[in-house]
Amino acid sequence: MMALVLPLGSVPAPMYSTLLTHVLIFLCIFSALCLSSDHEIHPLDSLTASELTQVQTIVNNSICSTSCQSLSFHYVGLHEPDKPIVLSWLSDKDSTKVPPRQAFVLARINFKNHELIVDLNASAIISNKVHDGHGYPLLNFAEQSAANRLPLTYAPFIASIKKRGLKLEEVICQSFTIGWFGEQKTKRIVREMCYYLDGTINLYMRPIEGITLTVDLDEMKIIGYRDRLIVPVPKAEGTDYREVKQKQPVSSPIKPITMLQPHGPSFNIEGHVVSWADWKFHLDFDMRVGPILSLASIYDLEKDESRSVMYRGFISELFVPYMDLTEEWYYRTYFDSGEYGFGLCAAPLLPSSDCPENAVFFDGYSMSQDGTPRKLPNIICIFERYAGDILWRHTEGAIPGKVFTEVRPEVSLIVRMVSAVGNYDYIVDWEFRQTGTIKVNIGLTGLLEVRAEAYTYKDQIGEEVYGTLLAENTLGSYHDHFLNFHLDLDVDNPANSFVKTKLQTTAVMDKRSPRRSYWTVVSETSKTESDARINLGSGAAELLVVNPNKKTEMGNYVGYRLLPGSVVNTLLSDDDYPEVRAGFTKYNVWVTPYNKSEKWAGGTYADQSRGDDNLAVWSLRNREIENKDIVIWYTLGFHHVPYQEDFPVMPTINNGFELRPTNFFEHNPVLKVKQLAKVKWLKCCKECRHNLTADIDPLA
Amino acid sequence: MMALVLPLGSVPAPMYSTLLTHVLIFLCIFSALCLSSDHEIHPLDSLTASELTQVQTIVNNSICSTSCQSLSFHYVGLHEPDKPIVLSWLSDKDSTKVPPRQAFVLARINFKNHELIVDLNASAIISNKVHDGHGYPLLNFAEQSAANRLPLTYAPFIASIKKRGLKLEEVICQSFTIGWFGEQKTKRIVREMCYYLDGTINLYMRPIEGITLTVDLDEMKIIGYRDRLIVPVPKAEGTDYREVKQKQPVSSPIKPITMLQPHGPSFNIEGHVVSWADWKFHLDFDMRVGPILSLASIYDLEKDESRSVMYRGFISELFVPYMDLTEEWYYRTYFDSGEYGFGLCAAPLLPSSDCPENAVFFDGYSMSQDGTPRKLPNIICIFERYAGDILWRHTEGAIPGKVFTEVRPEVSLIVRMVSAVGNYDYIVDWEFRQTGTIKVNIGLTGLLEVRAEAYTYKDQIGEEVYGTLLAENTLGSYHDHFLNFHLDLDVDNPANSFVKTKLQTTAVMDKRSPRRSYWTVVSETSKTESDARINLGSGAAELLVVNPNKKTEMGNYVGYRLLPGSVVNTLLSDDDYPEVRAGFTKYNVWVTPYNKSEKWAGGTYADQSRGDDNLAVWSLRNREIENKDIVIWYTLGFHHVPYQEDFPVMPTINNGFELRPTNFFEHNPVLKVKQLAKVKWLKCCKECRHNLTADIDPLA
Repeated sequence: MMALVLPLGSVPAPMYSTLLTHVLIFLCIFSALCLSSDHEIHPLDSLTASELTQVQTIVNNSICSTSCQSLSFHYVGLHEPDKPIVLSWLSDKDSTKVPPRQAFVLARINFKNHELIVDLNASAIISNKVHDGHGYPLLNFAEQSAANRLPLTYAPFIASIKKRGLKLEEVICQSFTIGWFGEQKTKRIVREMCYYLDGTINLYMRPIEGITLTVDLDEMKIIGYRDRLIVPVPKAEGTDYREVKQKQPVSSPIKPITMLQPHGPSFNIEGHVVSWADWKFHLDFDMRVGPILSLASIYDLEKDESRSVMYRGFISELFVPYMDLTEEWYYRTYFDSGEYGFGLCAAPLLPSSDCPENAVFFDGYSMSQDGTPRKLPNIICIFERYAGDILWRHTEGAIPGKVFTEVRPEVSLIVRMVSAVGNYDYIVDWEFRQTGTIKVNIGLTGLLEVRAEAYTYKDQIGEEVYGTLLAENTLGSYHDHFLNFHLDLDVDNPANSFVKTKLQTTAVMDKRSPRRSYWTVVSETSKTESDARINLGSGAAELLVVNPNKKTEMGNYVGYRLLPGSVVNTLLSDDDYPEVRAGFTKYNVWVTPYNKSEKWAGGTYADQSRGDDNLAVWSLRNREIENKDIVIWYTLGFHHVPYQEDFPVMPTINNGFELRPTNFFEHNPVLKVKQLAKVKWLKCCKECRHNLTADIDPLA
Repeated sequence: MMALVLPLGSVPAPMYSTLLTHVLIFLCIFSALCLSSDHEIHPLDSLTASELTQVQTIVNNSICSTSCQSLSFHYVGLHEPDKPIVLSWLSDKDSTKVPPRQAFVLARINFKNHELIVDLNASAIISNKVHDGHGYPLLNFAEQSAANRLPLTYAPFIASIKKRGLKLEEVICQSFTIGWFGEQKTKRIVREMCYYLDGTINLYMRPIEGITLTVDLDEMKIIGYRDRLIVPVPKAEGTDYREVKQKQPVSSPIKPITMLQPHGPSFNIEGHVVSWADWKFHLDFDMRVGPILSLASIYDLEKDESRSVMYRGFISELFVPYMDLTEEWYYRTYFDSGEYGFGLCAAPLLPSSDCPENAVFFDGYSMSQDGTPRKLPNIICIFERYAGDILWRHTEGAIPGKVFTEVRPEVSLIVRMVSAVGNYDYIVDWEFRQTGTIKVNIGLTGLLEVRAEAYTYKDQIGEEVYGTLLAENTLGSYHDHFLNFHLDLDVDNPANSFVKTKLQTTAVMDKRSPRRSYWTVVSETSKTESDARINLGSGAAELLVVNPNKKTEMGNYVGYRLLPGSVVNTLLSDDDYPEVRAGFTKYNVWVTPYNKSEKWAGGTYADQSRGDDNLAVWSLRNREIENKDIVIWYTLGFHHVPYQEDFPVMPTINNGFELRPTNFFEHNPVLKVKQLAKVKWLKCCKECRHNLTADIDPLA
């Protein structure tokens, strides 16, 4: 969820009048198109604030009028209409009615997990299912806050703090999900991990180790407490990352540099539909998964038609296992999406810092524990990027007496969200390129999860510490990040096949050539799900999604291919509990037939899940996937061995992948892209341009 | 080689007065620093035009005064002083004299391969060695041009052209190196492959197949001719990539977008030494390898000292094997650096297209066949990039009632060269980041090498064709690109060790934890060269270069690590001739002890080499590499299965790697980087800013 609101409501924080000018330009450009909130509703539009309020009212009235001992909301999102309905609406908007608006709700009602489908047109709950399987829904903010306050009034904890010589008022606790390690019975519990401020805002660098504090979220009380050992709390000095707190000397500043678009952006936004260059897609926000890109299609100049590429793409789950076996750490195997809400943790983006000056910003909505809509301002930005890259070029010097050079600079469109899930900040970029490529880049920054230990120098360490000594008493724990992407490609229609093309060495034994070897391509179409589970890194291959019902004029199947970035595979053993729960990490690529209910690779109830309802299990059915509406699930990973450079805040590290047209177009789709028009300064500007000045705007 | 000349001589082609204003700003900024050609000479400066002339004179006088039946220059470059001499000069410039200027020359004298060392101070050849081993030096342009003209007056070829119904005046021939396939005796020969224009400048899409034409370069005559079969020449229609040739409809234009730096760049150039942010490095150009980056060091704010990172980094060789066994194709296994000269093929960069508007340009020098210096204008550009990326960030929401957000946008410095080796254009970017990371990105664009065949539709193909049908009669041949990088890291001094850190799964059998597995790191220091030959892709590992004589305050060895991008390994068999010649492709990583003579991974005489003097052979000595001055050789690859989108000109594809500080700094070196100062418009500009206009400048 929720409704994207337009730039009017999300104009960047107090800024220069110059930026206002900018915004005014945007307003001029967009006003006719998108500033009306009464744009035609799109079947995939997230729920609006008023729709969310309606959901709250309907649920309250239906549930609480009868037996509402306790009701808390954990997820509300659009219950999407069936895909054929959306596609038929898309192909004939005029005569097709927008399907009924429905919400999907995960709620705890009287301490049971309920899945509700709320029909907004009918103002009624049309489905109310109790989940009696394992696992629990996402945690909401209110219960985490309540749990985080419990230790501060809990006598044994107060004693522990006193024993350590710390000030209680400087202690901050956080709720940590606890995974599952074979327990027969579970309760809805979290562990509280507490940190120390006292001279820094970088609490994550000051863990108060040795304490295990367990909270029952349903009862909202502490049900377990153990103070195992006292470890020095790492010092505050050197941990605060705020600019105002930095002492001299500081780095020499870089002179101002900005992306300038004097005529405004080349994209267009109507409702939630973004058009740029030949691309068109629907953009929305969901409190669980963050940005959702739907119905991405590209206009084919030669064929004069818009061609579908992707029905829906989003991050279906994130798995972050730590590799530290100590008593207070072993359980840290987070599902950032299914436990904490990747969208729920979206950070408001700072204009001119998180996104360049030419960006526009969007709001989203989540909801409070009681179902009240909560506005998340400026959580998505869109901008065009020109990074000085080259789309294509050639210098031809073979023709005597002549040299021809043709160059096209590359401009692309970025859709960005940042999710700050506790200590980590994930930067999610969906990049649309003129070539037809969709590139996803994930940036990891923010703060490490560190463990305090007595050590102040590496040579003192004589035991296994599961991490790198980053600073005095500070161990940066080894860990992974795995992000699974749900990529429902519809290459020129939903019926597609997955083709693995191996690059295979052939030995030349028969003297037919002076060569002794070469490679050729061997293509295999995956018949069923098991054929398409792939671990990359073992042998060269190209991974294609083709439309087996459509060929190019040359007779090649039209397709797109998945190009992985750095390949990272899980290192956990198959029988380890976290691995069973996050089964999607076992392969880099999975292909399933489309099934509306299979959205979240870690399962709907990720918190304390047991791996009995996730992608790995769905895929065991080994369904047919040839010439079907298929979904690609790509697992992108990071192994993170921390180094001292990651302290006290981490420089961004990146990994990503691409979806690239592959015999999709008859020829290079950017052959006819024009030179980039150049900025020409009018007289007034020319005269004063070199007098431009700059000012520091700390924004902090 | 050669001397970098400064922007004065290389001001972008005829442009707007606005750009002139820009240039004038640059001039103001740089004039004091770098526009004097009499900057202090640096021992690693390439040879200047006048030094090249001196080399020519000395060689001519010495050689031709005695027995100069024939003399041709094939390579002239700086004969670098010994590393200790350069380092001692660097550490004490005032009292150390710049070592004598010397040139290294590869020349053919009376049809023999000579290696000359010319001392410019002594005005004498101080070493003249005849190479009586296998292989030949780089081809020069003059002999290629002469060879390319031969077919056009050769009666059998004229008859072949006539037989095909083609016009001789539209035929263009190119010299193709022929590799080595076990022949006992070799001559200095090339094959001529001819193409057809007639309505396009994209000759590479119009091969005239079926003819094998062999030229002896020493005798400069055709010594072999065979017209095996007639194949239709693919049509011209749809192949021309010039903007002026494109028919309607064309892609909708992107509105102007530019990188603006009203105060000019933040870098500084003195002679060949570039300073930016905390980086300082020497930049030069060599006609064989292209850009050379030397003595890269970074200023450590906390330690208040400049610390060495890399002594010298450059592309040591490129290997491009095709996978087509047909008689006219099997030999295509090019060494683009050692055969054609990667620097020699540098393309003049188009301002505002190849590099953004805020770039500055440099010239280089190569030489003609007779040794006369030849200026290569605008072949390197430098610019700062702001692509909207985030250096680091964090949003802290854990502290009740407060939200802190700190964000630092990322600005980096790019050094770019483009080498157009025949049909292919290689974009080489060396990116310096504020974090201490050096990132190399290679972009491949330009034109495919295609083979003509009778087929016009895929289903007609009933034999192995070694490629993809891209257009009528046009097969895009499967091939690879392997680039080997010579990376002489000197992490805080030359004595370094190579450490492979494996991420290793440990099973938990002993109930010490509810977990059943985790991973930890196991580090191995490579003792000898054989320990450090690594094929990536099999198991997770971190590849570090550490200084074993220096620790951080925490006790970690200071280091840098190599982060590969997409891992690509050779698919040729070990015994195949091209693989033996390009032995450096057998591993992604090699480590050798520094040896001044080991520069070019494919050997000095790459043309028709037999693999007896290259990196793979040097490494067989299995020298000690622990705590030594070591060189890392990284092989970056691309497998290229062409698709229709690559026709008639290829969208850029990218691969790269990073060198990243790893416990090199005590903590995050960009913690104290300030917010990017924002552009503030003066009144005059504010008023007219939204009136800025744009014009198309086709530049073509």
